Amino acid sequence: MKYGFLGLGIMGSAMAANLVRAGFDVTVWNRNAAKCDQLVALGAKRGMTPKEVASTCDITIAMLADPEAALQVALGKDGVVEGIGEGRGYVDMSTVDDKTAGAIAERIAAAGGRFLEGPVSGTKKPAEDGTLIILAAGDRSLYDDAAPAFDKMGKKRLFLGEVGQGARMKLVVNSIMGGMLAVFCEGMALGKKGGLDPAEILEVLDAGAMANPMFKGKGGMLLEGKYPTNFPLKHMQKDLRLAVALGDELGQPLHCGASVNELFKRARAAGHADEDIAAVYQVVELP
Amino acid sequence: MKYGFLGLGIMGSAMAANLVRAGFDVTVWNRNAAKCDQLVALGAKRGMTPKEVASTCDITIAMLADPEAALQVALGKDGVVEGIGEGRGYVDMSTVDDKTAGAIAERIAAAGGRFLEGPVSGTKKPAEDGTLIILAAGDRSLYDDAAPAFDKMGKKRLFLGEVGQGARMKLVVNSIMGGMLAVFCEGMALGKKGGLDPAEILEVLDAGAMANPMFKGKGGMLLEGKYPTNFPLKHMQKDLRLAVALGDELGQPLHCGASVNELFKRARAAGHADEDIAAVYQVVELP
Amino acid sequence: MKYGFLGLGIMGSAMAANLVRAGFDVTVWNRNAAKCDQLVALGAKRGMTPKEVASTCDITIAMLADPEAALQVALGKDGVVEGIGEGRGYVDMSTVDDKTAGAIAERIAAAGGRFLEGPVSGTKKPAEDGTLIILAAGDRSLYDDAAPAFDKMGKKRLFLGEVGQGARMKLVVNSIMGGMLAVFCEGMALGKKGGLDPAEILEVLDAGAMANPMFKGKGGMLLEGKYPTNFPLKHMQKDLRLAVALGDELGQPLHCGASVNELFKRARAAGHADEDIAAVYQVVELP
Amino acid sequence: MKYGFLGLGIMGSAMAANLVRAGFDVTVWNRNAAKCDQLVALGAKRGMTPKEVASTCDITIAMLADPEAALQVALGKDGVVEGIGEGRGYVDMSTVDDKTAGAIAERIAAAGGRFLEGPVSGTKKPAEDGTLIILAAGDRSLYDDAAPAFDKMGKKRLFLGEVGQGARMKLVVNSIMGGMLAVFCEGMALGKKGGLDPAEILEVLDAGAMANPMFKGKGGMLLEGKYPTNFPLKHMQKDLRLAVALGDELGQPLHCGASVNELFKRARAAGHADEDIAAVYQVVELP
Repeated sequence: MKYGFLGLGIMGSAMAANLVRAGFDVTVWNRNAAKCDQLVALGAKRGMTPKEVASTCDITIAMLADPEAALQVALGKDGVVEGIGEGRGYVDMSTVDDKTAGAIAERIAAAGGRFLEGPVSGTKKPAEDGTLIILAAGDRSLYDDAAPAFDKMGKKRLFLGEVGQGARMKLVVNSIMGGMLAVFCEGMALGKKGGLDPAEILEVLDAGAMANPMFKGKGGMLLEGKYPTNFPLKHMQKDLRLAVALGDELGQPLHCGASVNELFKRARAAGHADEDIAAVYQVVELP
Repeated sequence: MKYGFLGLGIMGSAMAANLVRAGFDVTVWNRNAAKCDQLVALGAKRGMTPKEVASTCDITIAMLADPEAALQVALGKDGVVEGIGEGRGYVDMSTVDDKTAGAIAERIAAAGGRFLEGPVSGTKKPAEDGTLIILAAGDRSLYDDAAPAFDKMGKKRLFLGEVGQGARMKLVVNSIMGGMLAVFCEGMALGKKGGLDPAEILEVLDAGAMANPMFKGKGGMLLEGKYPTNFPLKHMQKDLRLAVALGDELGQPLHCGASVNELFKRARAAGHADEDIAAVYQVVELP
Repeated sequence: MKYGFLGLGIMGSAMAANLVRAGFDVTVWNRNAAKCDQLVALGAKRGMTPKEVASTCDITIAMLADPEAALQVALGKDGVVEGIGEGRGYVDMSTVDDKTAGAIAERIAAAGGRFLEGPVSGTKKPAEDGTLIILAAGDRSLYDDAAPAFDKMGKKRLFLGEVGQGARMKLVVNSIMGGMLAVFCEGMALGKKGGLDPAEILEVLDAGAMANPMFKGKGGMLLEGKYPTNFPLKHMQKDLRLAVALGDELGQPLHCGASVNELFKRARAAGHADEDIAAVYQVVELP
Repeated sequence: MKYGFLGLGIMGSAMAANLVRAGFDVTVWNRNAAKCDQLVALGAKRGMTPKEVASTCDITIAMLADPEAALQVALGKDGVVEGIGEGRGYVDMSTVDDKTAGAIAERIAAAGGRFLEGPVSGTKKPAEDGTLIILAAGDRSLYDDAAPAFDKMGKKRLFLGEVGQGARMKLVVNSIMGGMLAVFCEGMALGKKGGLDPAEILEVLDAGAMANPMFKGKGGMLLEGKYPTNFPLKHMQKDLRLAVALGDELGQPLHCGASVNELFKRARAAGHADEDIAAVYQVVELP
């Protein structure tokens, strides 16, 4: 089985490296070709265009920055659609909206290929450790065929049905994350104003039924007052906005989610867009 | 060291039993004396009144239902204040507001005794397992003296400073819990309306950085649509209300916390006051 | 000066009638031609297609149901763009989003015509009475030329600048209206639960600095518990959603507006979408 | 009929003056006696103590700064209770909570007197113009007896039932006012960020169904960016807090009201406590 891998940013290069190290036959491509060198040094082959990769590999995986890049690589000149043939597979693991995923799915199918969306839950560290959570949806047979590769990149994978359900799952999960972080920040600020030691609040939380890795990680940022970016605040606010919009579409009121969205919007407007999501704390605790 | 234990409800009887089983010398008292039998069978002594217990034990612990009971047992006829003498200790582990704790603290001190508030984080199961989190505040020497007993009842204990800080810590922690639950319920309802399998949402959450025991426990209730009471919804709403009021007192806006409070208020008004806190889901997912 | 008028629904027929009665030379057109009869009886001429009307009149006004109808009438087969010539004017008074208005504006300009958007504030009664508020934006010379007609249809008109600003003004005004109604309903429900007579609350409001016609009108609906549709709740919720989205685009947090939007969303989901906006009261006052 | 008037602050002096000018027999008292001079010059008599005034007048009216002052004047040494006799009336028009009103009512009744609470809607200008709205509750016969005086001080009066209902009506009305102001400020900020002229937004609002004196008054403050205090922001936030608490007591969720309260809380915390309520705009429009 030959694999292609398109897109070697922070996430993609770590994911592709896990495949190469596991002994898979992988051909890599990146817009800026220099980023391929590192993977080639590990044992990967070098591809010239998405079209070429898609036409020579059984399954081509992509991990691209945003919907524009995803559309360009799949549907643009020398793109995947031009190369993919009858029965070959394309797995787009980029985080895109369901319309983008649907548009790519349609064109791949029209070209005779199989399509799977596979956004992931998890950021840089899990990508490096091969412990991502893969939220797949689309062609079931492709999901099964790609399973060995998924199991090198992630610790968990789910097949969620039709194309679009992977994107929705990611939205639901991220909206819960944003909400947890908002109420956590409010609680920390309240306790601090009330004379409690923030480190002790973290200690109590970590000992009880609410203990979770995020509170530990983001809690540390709050204690230090520094917010190095793991997950940019503006991206979380975008997800919250999309979740509120999805609720609108589906007729699901989100009284708390909407408040959370506005709080992140305030943080974004106050200049914290590119800091980590934990930077929302800075508009919760008033100066 | 002789210990007294006042109040043998669900929590108190489990906590006292852990002391007796650990070989401590414990004298128990309960308003309804029949509840003492079980503890006496385990090896406890029987006390006649709070006054008597307080006057014969070095440290008397109380775990009572509410502020009224706490005031009655401490300050009422034949109460702790009448019995406590110079240097003896009284540890009130009931969940009360800071004014109640302050009033008791003042009278115990006036009578020559030492006082410590020690509300706990954790419910029935942790009480039985001796894995409560003890949020103590007040007399530091009493905290140190009672440490061996705390370590049989809980897995973690903190000394938080002046009387009232224990109650505040509990409020902060519970307001975060209520907020987490609200955003969790909204996410679950959104996903369900969007065609996702709620059990799979739980699976994804449990695999990532947000994984926590509460989502597992309450998530199970949501899947079954049954809300057997571990923590009554009306008590959580009371804590949320007090947290919002504390924010008012301290000048700390809680945009999200206030939304969470209103959601629980809606659930209470809709008839779910005595169900478990997870029953808030029933006003999130519209029929 | 010859006027065309396209679209004779509830609003359009009332507005066109005001022009005809004032002695203007008006040619009318409606998709369902039967609706023209009444206007023709008043003295209007009958047009065959939007193209024909636009090619024979100096200024053609449109009042259409939604963006789809607006696009079809302007850009579709036998549409306005096909007929409009150098210097002729097209005034679209339909309520559409700024993208729709922009697309029509561009095509009209390319065809040599002048374009003005002119959404209105006010519903059926002000349309009949000629007391609408006209929120115009686009070609200033067309605004001036159409002023005599505007002054028969409305009691107030503003020129707001570039195409799109009319739509934005309408959104701002409607989001304030939705918010006023939400807090009014909450206050009424609170007072009623507290034993006050709702009619007396209205009386007090009407005597003070907050007195406004909307509270009187909607207040009457609340007292009777009947919500005959002047302004459909689902349209208001759409406007609130767009206002929240505009805030997102512009970086303006709307903590209260977002809460208001979710409340209307709840009302929509609870089955009140087609009732009047005042029906939001039914999810505020719990049964 | 002899009237007493206790409390000659901004409100009280204007109200008492209207009674004197109308030819009523009025005896005035104020803690700082110098403030009586102006009224005496108009024709009022000078009283020495609340007790003396209450014992010599048929109906004694009070307009005091806060609950503490109201309690002191009614129940303190040389207070109203000491002087009031069988059948004499005491009308407290101060803004107090329902517990304070209830406590005074009970003591007046025990002394044989009749009691009426009569908080007002309206501030300095309506007090001077005799156009207040009087929200009375308590003794019906006293309400009828005092009607001629009420009609000189106010343009509207309502009898709302048992003591406490006047305070509740005022809370309901003020919570609606705070909510209207919050959504108004959010709409103004949104429009401004969107390139609209704030003065034109005001013009549109003032022409439609939402037109009300408050938007005109507060709108002017927003345009100038100056917030001279008519109604201190901290007092409004207190009323919003009490309204949310009343909702809690009565089981009435206030999703929007709670958001409004937090917004005012943010404004208070940001240093605008003593400015006019319109100063809430400063935390809505981000710098």
